[in-house]
Amino acid sequence: MKKYAVGADVGGTTVKLGLFTTEGDLLEKWEIPTRTEDGGKYIFPDIASSVKEVLEKKNLTFDDLEGVGLDVPGPVLPDGTVNRSVNIGWGVIKAADMMSEAMGGLRATVLNDANAAALGEMWKGAGKGNKDVCMITLGTGVGGGIIVDGKIVPGAFGAGGEIGHITINPNEKTRCNCGKYGCLEQYASGRGIAQVCERRLSETDEPSSLRNIKNPTAKEIYAEAGKGDKFASDLVDEISSMLAMVMSFVSGVTDPKVFVIGGGVSKNGPIVTERIEKFFKEYAFHASKDAKVVLAELGNDAGMYGAVKALL
Amino acid sequence: MKKYAVGADVGGTTVKLGLFTTEGDLLEKWEIPTRTEDGGKYIFPDIASSVKEVLEKKNLTFDDLEGVGLDVPGPVLPDGTVNRSVNIGWGVIKAADMMSEAMGGLRATVLNDANAAALGEMWKGAGKGNKDVCMITLGTGVGGGIIVDGKIVPGAFGAGGEIGHITINPNEKTRCNCGKYGCLEQYASGRGIAQVCERRLSETDEPSSLRNIKNPTAKEIYAEAGKGDKFASDLVDEISSMLAMVMSFVSGVTDPKVFVIGGGVSKNGPIVTERIEKFFKEYAFHASKDAKVVLAELGNDAGMYGAVKALL
Repeated sequence: MKKYAVGADVGGTTVKLGLFTTEGDLLEKWEIPTRTEDGGKYIFPDIASSVKEVLEKKNLTFDDLEGVGLDVPGPVLPDGTVNRSVNIGWGVIKAADMMSEAMGGLRATVLNDANAAALGEMWKGAGKGNKDVCMITLGTGVGGGIIVDGKIVPGAFGAGGEIGHITINPNEKTRCNCGKYGCLEQYASGRGIAQVCERRLSETDEPSSLRNIKNPTAKEIYAEAGKGDKFASDLVDEISSMLAMVMSFVSGVTDPKVFVIGGGVSKNGPIVTERIEKFFKEYAFHASKDAKVVLAELGNDAGMYGAVKALL
Repeated sequence: MKKYAVGADVGGTTVKLGLFTTEGDLLEKWEIPTRTEDGGKYIFPDIASSVKEVLEKKNLTFDDLEGVGLDVPGPVLPDGTVNRSVNIGWGVIKAADMMSEAMGGLRATVLNDANAAALGEMWKGAGKGNKDVCMITLGTGVGGGIIVDGKIVPGAFGAGGEIGHITINPNEKTRCNCGKYGCLEQYASGRGIAQVCERRLSETDEPSSLRNIKNPTAKEIYAEAGKGDKFASDLVDEISSMLAMVMSFVSGVTDPKVFVIGGGVSKNGPIVTERIEKFFKEYAFHASKDAKVVLAELGNDAGMYGAVKALL
């Protein structure tokens, strides 16, 4: 095993890069813009030349690297083929091979970003020391990553851990982006929480400090709930209950030891996990009730950590 | 690898035994009574002496065996400890060690019965050729076994694949045996189907051939549905829809390639899988819609096959 490795979290706007030791210490991180034009083909040489530059400053070369791990928003097949990533301009491309080629044959792997974050949190974050983990990322959407016995479950159709699109409300009349109705993402994503709030505010006359805020965000809703506003608190309970129900489904399938809650919504702190855990204990099968519910620790770096872990 | 292995499916009434080649050919099968008295401690020597007898007739000894694989109704920890099996009288016992000891140090493994059936069907039955499988056993209860990349997912708390206790109806007023309300098992097990039928018959005056049968069983309900009775057909749709919804949850977690439907209820034939598949295609996330839904092929032998596979 060589001493260093690079993780690259490829997003629609920037590529976050990290130089790691293969022990998992993040030595340096930096960003470059994501050039999505021409089918995103410049992303590979851009990463290669930026990594080369950083290595040179430390008197290192590609030869000192165990490899480069990428994580991307989109489905990834086991051979490193990305099956379209709209945000970064890629169609169906052999991303691992192309990255390897741009770096003179260096080993390269590609993971889906939610899976990479799960692997990162298991390796060096909130799931450390556990081999059976479910990570739930509450961001613009709801992402998920399932780890069984230390390995990501990619799924036979690349949809392993797509828990944001598990149906939680079969009676929903509004369609999810995925085409179905009542997906968890419609309620528990940052946007979903704000939309549920809007609905509930219009349905009742119940007083709430949220009525003084124009289009309350998830952050504002959690803040008011924390301050004791009953309406906001009930709303957080409603969302937390839906998340906990889906987590109880996950327990009935892979029965993880730890649920790691990440993404923008998780930045609202312990209230997020405490409320979820309360309902989870109620809904879970008796054997699985003691699964832990913890906040993610690696923030936006989780994907890079996981991308590196996938190389090892 | 030695040439032979034994599978032992330990049930509350009988132990089903099978002598297999390690290629997976079942050479001979037989049964012995399960002696549940004195904490079920006679089960191990009973299996040992019965296997010895069968081997002797073929001029074989324990030395010709790769090992003996057990499967039992109850949770099993990764080290082969059974964490109580009410049906067979076991408390918390190191069943693998005890089986090994009774057979002069021969290798022994223990699996949960639903997991063993899943592994068996993957190896030599309806899931053959696939590494990502979900088996659902519709019997007295609803059992499940999840296989990812060819391996059983036992779960951090031994509850991997407990899909019979996934909540499908949070509004249920009757309690499941597990203590929760609205578990899939309350509707989709043989007993559950009969109970849903009883409820629906009492709720409406809708004519049905089932009204001529006293306490219709799942078998009779499927039979009448197959003959075109609308009430029975709607009932089968209701049950199939619940099963398909839970299967769509499983797809959102491990995303299997194949769902294998086994157990007594599956003996009602293609109507079982056809109805489930119709709803599954409607509920599943787009990527996972093409997962196959097939009838189990190994019947009561599935557990023995899986128990042997676990040794290899």
